[in-house]
Amino acid sequence: MNSTESVWKQLTDHVRETAILKSTQALLEWDQQTMLPQRGVDWRAQQITWMAGQIHQRETDPRLGDWLHELADADLAADPHSESGACIRELQYRFNKKAKLPLELVEQQATAHSIGQQIWAEARKDNDFAAFAPHLEKIFALKREEAAACGVTEDPYDALLDDYETGALTEPVDEVLTRLKEALVPLIAQATDGSVPVDDAILHRSYPRQAQEAFIREVTAAIGFDYQRGRLDVAAHPFCMESGPHDCRMTTRYNESLFSPAFFGSLHEAGHGIYEQGLRTEQYGFPAGTWCSLGIHESQSRLWENLVGRSQGFWQHFLPRARHWFPESLADVSVDQFHRAVNRIQPSLIRVEADEATYNLHIIIRFELERALINNQLAVQDLPEAWNQKYREYLGITPPDERNGVLQDIHWSAGLVGYFPTYSLGNIYSSQMFARAAGDLGDLEEDFARGDFGPLLEWLRTAVHAAGNCYRSGELMQKLTGSTIDERPLIDHLRQKVDRICAAA
Amino acid sequence: MNSTESVWKQLTDHVRETAILKSTQALLEWDQQTMLPQRGVDWRAQQITWMAGQIHQRETDPRLGDWLHELADADLAADPHSESGACIRELQYRFNKKAKLPLELVEQQATAHSIGQQIWAEARKDNDFAAFAPHLEKIFALKREEAAACGVTEDPYDALLDDYETGALTEPVDEVLTRLKEALVPLIAQATDGSVPVDDAILHRSYPRQAQEAFIREVTAAIGFDYQRGRLDVAAHPFCMESGPHDCRMTTRYNESLFSPAFFGSLHEAGHGIYEQGLRTEQYGFPAGTWCSLGIHESQSRLWENLVGRSQGFWQHFLPRARHWFPESLADVSVDQFHRAVNRIQPSLIRVEADEATYNLHIIIRFELERALINNQLAVQDLPEAWNQKYREYLGITPPDERNGVLQDIHWSAGLVGYFPTYSLGNIYSSQMFARAAGDLGDLEEDFARGDFGPLLEWLRTAVHAAGNCYRSGELMQKLTGSTIDERPLIDHLRQKVDRICAAA
Repeated sequence: MNSTESVWKQLTDHVRETAILKSTQALLEWDQQTMLPQRGVDWRAQQITWMAGQIHQRETDPRLGDWLHELADADLAADPHSESGACIRELQYRFNKKAKLPLELVEQQATAHSIGQQIWAEARKDNDFAAFAPHLEKIFALKREEAAACGVTEDPYDALLDDYETGALTEPVDEVLTRLKEALVPLIAQATDGSVPVDDAILHRSYPRQAQEAFIREVTAAIGFDYQRGRLDVAAHPFCMESGPHDCRMTTRYNESLFSPAFFGSLHEAGHGIYEQGLRTEQYGFPAGTWCSLGIHESQSRLWENLVGRSQGFWQHFLPRARHWFPESLADVSVDQFHRAVNRIQPSLIRVEADEATYNLHIIIRFELERALINNQLAVQDLPEAWNQKYREYLGITPPDERNGVLQDIHWSAGLVGYFPTYSLGNIYSSQMFARAAGDLGDLEEDFARGDFGPLLEWLRTAVHAAGNCYRSGELMQKLTGSTIDERPLIDHLRQKVDRICAAA
Repeated sequence: MNSTESVWKQLTDHVRETAILKSTQALLEWDQQTMLPQRGVDWRAQQITWMAGQIHQRETDPRLGDWLHELADADLAADPHSESGACIRELQYRFNKKAKLPLELVEQQATAHSIGQQIWAEARKDNDFAAFAPHLEKIFALKREEAAACGVTEDPYDALLDDYETGALTEPVDEVLTRLKEALVPLIAQATDGSVPVDDAILHRSYPRQAQEAFIREVTAAIGFDYQRGRLDVAAHPFCMESGPHDCRMTTRYNESLFSPAFFGSLHEAGHGIYEQGLRTEQYGFPAGTWCSLGIHESQSRLWENLVGRSQGFWQHFLPRARHWFPESLADVSVDQFHRAVNRIQPSLIRVEADEATYNLHIIIRFELERALINNQLAVQDLPEAWNQKYREYLGITPPDERNGVLQDIHWSAGLVGYFPTYSLGNIYSSQMFARAAGDLGDLEEDFARGDFGPLLEWLRTAVHAAGNCYRSGELMQKLTGSTIDERPLIDHLRQKVDRICAAA
């Protein structure tokens, strides 16, 4: 073995072993959310902390920096989109970013986020933003320090967004989200002006838990989730994670008098799961076998949840199966009725309960506010009023209290600043991809109406899943659609849906 | 801090951290038996192997030897039954034993046991002992090497038994089991001579799975298993393990047309679980907070399964509850009938399905055979005939094939030689303890008939659980009962039961 080969082997062995630790960490966390006995929490925290320490040590191991330095000019690194080139590029990028952060700052942040989440939970319960405000100030101050340590001085938000969407810059994201907002506000006003009321009372009938679960397993398997390589369980806060290349676990929660949360939540998580299951297993733990970005991950969940799962064709196929599982509640319901009900647009207070269209305004509000906070253009004490102001302006509603307003999300308390826009990036990407896939494959709704999800799945497997993180999100979208990010397919999709729903009245 | 204090701190930090790893390893294994998707097995093996390597490194870390050496004469070590003294004694004992084993032997054994289990599973399926025989020869040859490396030359079996029952010697165990056999063979013949037939057809009625689980949860909680600190799940091979001081998980399996396996299996596992939950949580991972030996662990499971769960008093209290859960199957059944049915004695081929009395003969057969094998008094090729011969002699039955005979247990293929006798030691200890507890507390069956299991539980908590491994099994039994091991209480118990069942006919 020459020196390059030997260094490459050491690097890949190191990464492979780190993947074993990370997947074990993931299992500890999954188990905590789904299985852990009530009083097991304290010990579990010790297990997770130990594992996190090991992973951190391995990811900041100076030998990693040495190996990457030695490989920088090797042939292996020449093509940044090859397995080896992407591996070297992405590891180097993250190693450099981490290496810039002083240990003291990392530790201060860990403490601030841990305390922040506890205080936030209390404050939300007590409807008391003032109690949380000093901690939020501290968290944002440390985030500013983090951006400065990364050497980002122009717009500190760039450094934060980049943690979740590598290489994305704030300015173009801001432009896209602003155009999206300007299209959505009038569109939503039109859809909800009362001229064409949409009735979703049928979704509020009786939906027994066992039947919901059986129907969800049937549908998620039909669209491509492989239960030999995954599970579905119950958790208070639905999520999807993987603990190995053939071990992908999603969760949901059931409401027996409301159809939508478990069903569409599971389609959403199954979309994440189908992505994970479509990654190249032999590259597990390496960029070539890892998801691309949070935005791309979200595009996969939103695509199956909204573009497939709320389409007319989908329900042409699946409503008869839904009637099989819920004969009493759905005997008298037509495909048109059901399709309209699951596509009702209605401004509401809570992000995680929002419909396909208004959801993006919830995100844009948070993006604008967190950006103003990080840039010192908004003081934390003025945040609740700014929040309510934007809800009035964009959605026409006013939160009655802080619990249902500025205190509803855990993200900021956990130091997740720059994370929110990836939700809307996901929605945008999903429409770009869907339009491109339809261009390649023809009328997808006809496939869905026949229960055939294979062509779309195969397209995603090849175009998105197999690429892993050999491309960054902007590069991947450019390669697939000729445009890094483009809000127009999403706006077109929502406009067509509003027209269709209104016309069907 | 003086030097002793500093060394003690390093030692205890090391042990505490090892406990975190071991409990994580346990979760990986629990999850594999209960939750892991079918295709997740290969990656799970990598996670478990990595963790095992870390644990092995920590347990054979030369620093551990140095710390223990420095502490050998410290005040902390003076009382071998104190927290610190037991810690130093037991760690030193195991460290010495492990240090004597050449790495090459350890690796050869790991491979032999891994291959052995696969070959055994195939051989059992194919009913083909000859295919397994060369591997079994290899495994026993390596076990002889292991004993020799430990410096045990007199009776190599001593070194193996000691792995599961620290400090126990073969000769006294042999004497006790021989006397037990001599009492059991005629007693079982008497109970099954056909003069007093026991009908257990009522146990073969319909027992729906959901109701079985509900009844099991009710009963196991009533006797003391804390579901805030534990779980009950389904697994193909029932077991109980813990993944932290407040996280004890047991499993069972259900047969809807047979009452006994899930119910008594769960009482058995709950007995193990109640022991684990009774250990001193602040000493978790240290000998003072660890179970004493496999024999003592088994005594706790057998005590709740047999001495409590098959008593007349127990069913006086719980039969009405069983009728609540299984109204159709148990409406016409009296306490006497039920008590007789669950105490039916009947020689049978399979150890894990055996009744309370014949079970010990299954164990004694295996003990005699593995001892003869390790001492080269029996050749592996002659094992099937020797097995069948003993079944004829002790139990009056002849296995029709190897699958239901010599190939039924996984133990030898996994290198568990010296393990079997601990099952019967558990039975013996349980009767010794129960007799002692009854001496202290009065008629326990009266408590059971009132549904009061608290006095017995408290007795066990104080006498057995709180002691952890500050005493070895022989020392603990001596302290509790005045005798290290004594088969007579078990023989008395079984004789009384036979008399009672026969008299009730």
